[in-house]
Amino acid sequence: MRTVRTIAELRAALAPARGGRIGFVPTMGALHEGHLSLLRAAREDNDTVVLSIFVNPTQFDQAADLAAYPRTEERDAELAASAGVDVLFAPDAAELYPAGFATTVRVAGSIVETLEGAHRGRAHFDGVATVVVKLLLSVLPDTAYFGAKDAQQVVVVRRVVADLDVPVRIAVRPTSRDDDGLARSSRNTRLSPDERSRAAAIPRVLTAIAAAVTAGDADAEALCARGLATLVEAGVAPEYLAVVDPDTLEPMRAVDRPALLVVAATVGATRLIDNVLLAPGGRR
Amino acid sequence: MRTVRTIAELRAALAPARGGRIGFVPTMGALHEGHLSLLRAAREDNDTVVLSIFVNPTQFDQAADLAAYPRTEERDAELAASAGVDVLFAPDAAELYPAGFATTVRVAGSIVETLEGAHRGRAHFDGVATVVVKLLLSVLPDTAYFGAKDAQQVVVVRRVVADLDVPVRIAVRPTSRDDDGLARSSRNTRLSPDERSRAAAIPRVLTAIAAAVTAGDADAEALCARGLATLVEAGVAPEYLAVVDPDTLEPMRAVDRPALLVVAATVGATRLIDNVLLAPGGRR
Repeated sequence: MRTVRTIAELRAALAPARGGRIGFVPTMGALHEGHLSLLRAAREDNDTVVLSIFVNPTQFDQAADLAAYPRTEERDAELAASAGVDVLFAPDAAELYPAGFATTVRVAGSIVETLEGAHRGRAHFDGVATVVVKLLLSVLPDTAYFGAKDAQQVVVVRRVVADLDVPVRIAVRPTSRDDDGLARSSRNTRLSPDERSRAAAIPRVLTAIAAAVTAGDADAEALCARGLATLVEAGVAPEYLAVVDPDTLEPMRAVDRPALLVVAATVGATRLIDNVLLAPGGRR
Repeated sequence: MRTVRTIAELRAALAPARGGRIGFVPTMGALHEGHLSLLRAAREDNDTVVLSIFVNPTQFDQAADLAAYPRTEERDAELAASAGVDVLFAPDAAELYPAGFATTVRVAGSIVETLEGAHRGRAHFDGVATVVVKLLLSVLPDTAYFGAKDAQQVVVVRRVVADLDVPVRIAVRPTSRDDDGLARSSRNTRLSPDERSRAAAIPRVLTAIAAAVTAGDADAEALCARGLATLVEAGVAPEYLAVVDPDTLEPMRAVDRPALLVVAATVGATRLIDNVLLAPGGRR
């Protein structure tokens, strides 16, 4: 595995690989099994696998969250090498945002204003969209791999890639989960053992609602009200639990077509997000 | 020459050409000698030459200007074919901005706020930046060719291409001029014979100031004041005549280093822009 720090080195390293297929997994590091499952998919589909590790400052709305974001570079490099990564791109902020940098990729509308956009502010998805375009154009892969856990990020990335004609295929892989169902996240390392066990209520609630919908219950409001109560009882502080359209992220009252159930909740000082697809069944 | 209307057709047409060098000239059509000089440069440097013709609605601040913009598609296609264009990309607005389109590439700071940005509003350069990124990523050329006449556009395009890591070289070719010095522009076709002869004062003033600077006159304010008076006397209504930094476009008081002299002026109902580089000499 070759580690590069600049876009020029990255392009030089990838030039000989341009004949074959290139797969790319962009991350903020602190690699866990979820990232490794993306790398396995990339390894399977491609001749060359590129991993980027960059904790993007422009997508953090709170300096404390940025400072506290876990950084485990040496371990990440070992995991990447054993996952078969060919090129690890680990730039610093000055490489991606040099003096004079002045451009923002901005998405408009409900997909950036709702849910995480409402919580983290409009700058969050501006930051995500801009850095993803920069990374995709630096690597110029055939396929870039994203995890379904960050559902809204996936919707925004798909929108930007389509709108700007970025010549890259976006592949989305299922959320990777621990044995108790908790979605794997770099932020999970911040949970105490007690918080960890309380947090498991989040996937339990998602699974229960998904089962109810499959069994024919289509009343999004009632389902979410019961789910919110269950979370609170379990010692989780929910921020939102909502049934939304998978493409527009606009709220749905009746689960009469495939929908996305999204949740954000705080456990102790740690904010977690998760989601599942809802497939309506039964009464229709 | 092959004419394509969709990005999918364009990419399919260019797939076999990816081994060689691809040159790209983006235009709004109404081709004139200025465009042809860009196409000659592209033809000389590349194996495949792509021309785009798209009157981009999002960069017009006035519906009347958009409606009045000259459209000469059949003649353009003939000129393109005889200039050696391999692929003519002529999409309609629905191809570049389909339903649900929601992304804007936005540049911040003086380079978009001053001069044309002040006159045409912030949406103008948002529109330019967004469509140029889309066209560059659709064609993915080795080199894209722009005319020096649209100096501010060139500064904005260079900024966006650098900031977003668009893997394209930007080549800027000198402004093409008629015998009387008037910069070639698709808008010149709207000038009456009388307006046409008055408009020639614009390049005369630019040339006179450039000569004065070379001879040692470095007082930007005095030079521009005299130039503005000359334009008014000639029956031209100047909007701005300014000495600016070639990279930041910020105003310069003393022409003590290479600078850009920029002008916008209205002749009859037609608004024209032009510029020359100033190379200080003499007294220093």
